[in-house]
Order: sequence, then C-alpha cells, then structure tokens
Amino acid sequence: MPRYAFRVEYDGAPFAGWQAQAGQPSVQAAIEAALGRLDAGFAEGARIAAAGRTDAGVHATGQVFHADLARDWPPFRLGEALNWHLKPDPVAITAVAEVGDDFHARFSALERRYAFRLVARRAPVVADRGQVWQVLRPLDADAMRDAARHLLGQHDFTTFRSTMCQAKSPVKTLDEIVIDELPYPAGQEIRFQLRARSFLHNQVRSIVGTLERVGAGAWAPERVRDALDARDRAACGPVCPPQGLSLTGVGYATDPFA
Amino acid sequence: MPRYAFRVEYDGAPFAGWQAQAGQPSVQAAIEAALGRLDAGFAEGARIAAAGRTDAGVHATGQVFHADLARDWPPFRLGEALNWHLKPDPVAITAVAEVGDDFHARFSALERRYAFRLVARRAPVVADRGQVWQVLRPLDADAMRDAARHLLGQHDFTTFRSTMCQAKSPVKTLDEIVIDELPYPAGQEIRFQLRARSFLHNQVRSIVGTLERVGAGAWAPERVRDALDARDRAACGPVCPPQGLSLTGVGYATDPFA
Repeated sequence: MPRYAFRVEYDGAPFAGWQAQAGQPSVQAAIEAALGRLDAGFAEGARIAAAGRTDAGVHATGQVFHADLARDWPPFRLGEALNWHLKPDPVAITAVAEVGDDFHARFSALERRYAFRLVARRAPVVADRGQVWQVLRPLDADAMRDAARHLLGQHDFTTFRSTMCQAKSPVKTLDEIVIDELPYPAGQEIRFQLRARSFLHNQVRSIVGTLERVGAGAWAPERVRDALDARDRAACGPVCPPQGLSLTGVGYATDPFA
Repeated sequence: MPRYAFRVEYDGAPFAGWQAQAGQPSVQAAIEAALGRLDAGFAEGARIAAAGRTDAGVHATGQVFHADLARDWPPFRLGEALNWHLKPDPVAITAVAEVGDDFHARFSALERRYAFRLVARRAPVVADRGQVWQVLRPLDADAMRDAARHLLGQHDFTTFRSTMCQAKSPVKTLDEIVIDELPYPAGQEIRFQLRARSFLHNQVRSIVGTLERVGAGAWAPERVRDALDARDRAACGPVCPPQGLSLTGVGYATDPFA
C-alpha cells in the first residue's frame, strides 16, 4: 500500500483536540472521515498517525500525519479531493507527498515547532478572538527573555508537564525559545516560538503561563530557574489557555514536501 | 454637553454594516445600545457619527466616531464601561478622548486609511477565514503595482464607484496605494494599503477586484488606465468581496487620541 505524508492546518476551536475520542469532535476523526470518502480502508476504520497530538482548542499551521491508501494517487489530486471532503470543517491539507514505508509522521520526526500568541491590552480582542491569549496588563518582554534562558537545553521538566503526561521520562531538550514583542493596536503582542525534538504534555502552555507571571512582574526571572530545579509540578506557574497555541512545523531528516 | 471621540475595532462578519438600519444588526446600533446603558440621551435615541460608513462584512481596526454625552466621564472609565456593555459583540473601544464641539468624526476627518488582505492559494484558508479574500491562483504583485500607479492622484473615479454611490462628485484624490507581497503558508498574501481624504462607495473593493485581474494575468496593467479614462462603471473589473477589507485609521488635523 502506498504511504502518503500530509501537512495540515486547522483551527482548534471546534475540536476536542487532535485525537479521536468517542462522542467528541476531533481533527483526526474529521480527516479519517474525509479519507473514508475516497479510500476503502478508511471507510472500514483505518487510522492516521500525527506528529503531535494537539490538545483541545490548540491550532496548527504545520501539523504532519501519514496514511496508507489502497491505491496510488497523484499527490496534488489527493490533496484537492481531501480538502473537498473536509468542507466545511476548518481543516485544510496544504501539502501532500508520497513517502516510503519507513516514514512515520510521529516516530520519524526530529523536531516540533510551536508558536504562542499572547496579547496584552485592556480592550477585548476582536479580529484575533480565539487565536490569542489575552491578558490585561503590559508585560516586560526582557524579563521574560531573562527567565526563559534558564529553560534552554536538557532538563528534567517535571515542573512543566501535566500530571496526566504519559511520557516515560520527564527529561527533554528545549532547543530554542524566542520571545518577540510586536506592535498591536492599543496594546502589545508577545510571540513565543519554541523548538524541541519533542515536548511533554502541556509543556508549552506551562512554560508560557509561567513566563507571563515574570512579564507581569509577579515572579522574578530567577524563580523560573528555581521552579525548574524543584522538579515539582506544584512549583509551576498557572498553565495558560490553549487558544494562543499553534503547532507550526515538524522537522524530519529529509523534508517529505520539499 | 461634553463631546467624546472614540476609536473602535470590529469584526464586520455579523453586521449588515456600520450604519443602523431597521431590523438589521449594525455596528452603530450595537454601540448606541451600549451607550444607552450609561447615558440618558442615548437611552432615548441619540445618535453617533462615524468617519467611515463601512459596508456589510467590512472590518475596522481604526474607525472613529463621536458622541455627545449628558455628563462628564473620565475617558478611561468611559471606554471600560462601553466595552463591558458591548460584550459579547465583536466590537471594542480602543481609545477615548474628550474633544471640542468643533470636532466631528466624519466632517473633521482629513484622511481615511484602508487595508485589504488577499490570499492566493489552493487549500482553503483556515485561521484567517472571514478576514481575507481568497483566490486560487498565484498573483503577479509587480503587474498589480504597475497598474495601480495609474490610479494615484486626482481622477474622476466613476469607473470605480458603486452605481449606488451618493457622493456629489466622482472626483477623488488617491494619495497612496501600497501593494506588499507577504509569505503565507502554502501560498501568497497580497496586502493593499490605500489612503485618501475620502473614498467613494465601493471604491476600494472596485480597485482591488480590478487589480486582482491584472495580477492573475487576465488584464494588462494599461487596461486599468483605460478603464479609469472611460469614466464608465461597466469598464470596472469585478468588485471583490468585503471580508478582506478593514478601515485601519482616520486622520485629523490634531490626533484626538495622542
């Protein structure tokens, strides 16, 4: 059976997350239903595998999944057909490539990239509603950058993972955390970009929620280092809400879509 | 009665436009209803005046209106109170200032600035749904810039105004039209920025819809000059849909919010 890799974009708002769950709308189930309209295997319950199982409300611009299909498809036509059947769900296939049997969207992935949009202003956000986390007071981006430095590199991230996290080890390597301050009408936008081979459950939202406390002046930057060293979930700041978060890209040894 | 100027942001999608119309939701009516919760005059039917009467589906980040209130308000508290009463409508006051009786949001305005977002790609847009006009084929931004030059300056814009336009004269001066090409996942974004003292009804959408024909290769750039010279609505290209358009700012001799 030929295997195809897909890059997919979605708005997480209407979904209970990536992963298919009985009785709840999921991105995975929406895509599998669309595949079922053009492939017998998926009509009978075949499954797809994704690089990152995003939580309820989390978006993606660069999620990747793979699927084994019963017959050969020209990649362009396969993407067009899937997008047709995905309507009107806010899910769009933006790239398709045939890959070898050794490609696995999750296990072959060498890095994941996430972005988080945080807007600080008094007036309610309008155009970006559902795409950003809003706080009401201005934030100190330099203090957040100072604090974020402590998180770079390999650490035991027990403090920054959900108690529901199923990863065998809490040790991860955070390769990059970039914090940019952007102009925003009547306020300020802080954009976080994080990159790692893989992330623990709720790791990005735990980090952003904690750094927001630093930006607000409630935490000194060094308290983030102490929280990390504590290896204790209770030392974490508040976990921020999901709607500012987006999976923006997945890296492989060879880019299947290049 | 003290007069206040307000800067306001809104998502145009749920509204039949700025202007209050019986039986239809409008931005103006939403704001007047919120003002009615805190001012006796508005509870009894006083009206507000805006710099630009945006059409159905058109957004704003920098619309300006003024209102005469029965009593003095600290501007910050007035904005907060209005935003409270505007919930859950996608309308937010982002600045408030007390102004003199000679300030009129519409008649004192010396320039209006509009932006239009156009996305060219095959896959349906997801996160920006309702905020951009999508076309399926790539566009030639240089050809659009060539064509746009013909529209700069003072002209009879009869070709580019709605037959419903109520302006006394079709002669307007287009002071600026900037066309930027931006990266967009799996496609291309073209952002138009236009500036003029005032615009005719449907002028921006008539211009953008016509320039898109040039970008697509269906029109030579010179055809836009010929269309302008024709002073004939029938010579215009297709009027593009409203959801990519936003009123981004209004200029006055003295910025009331500075």
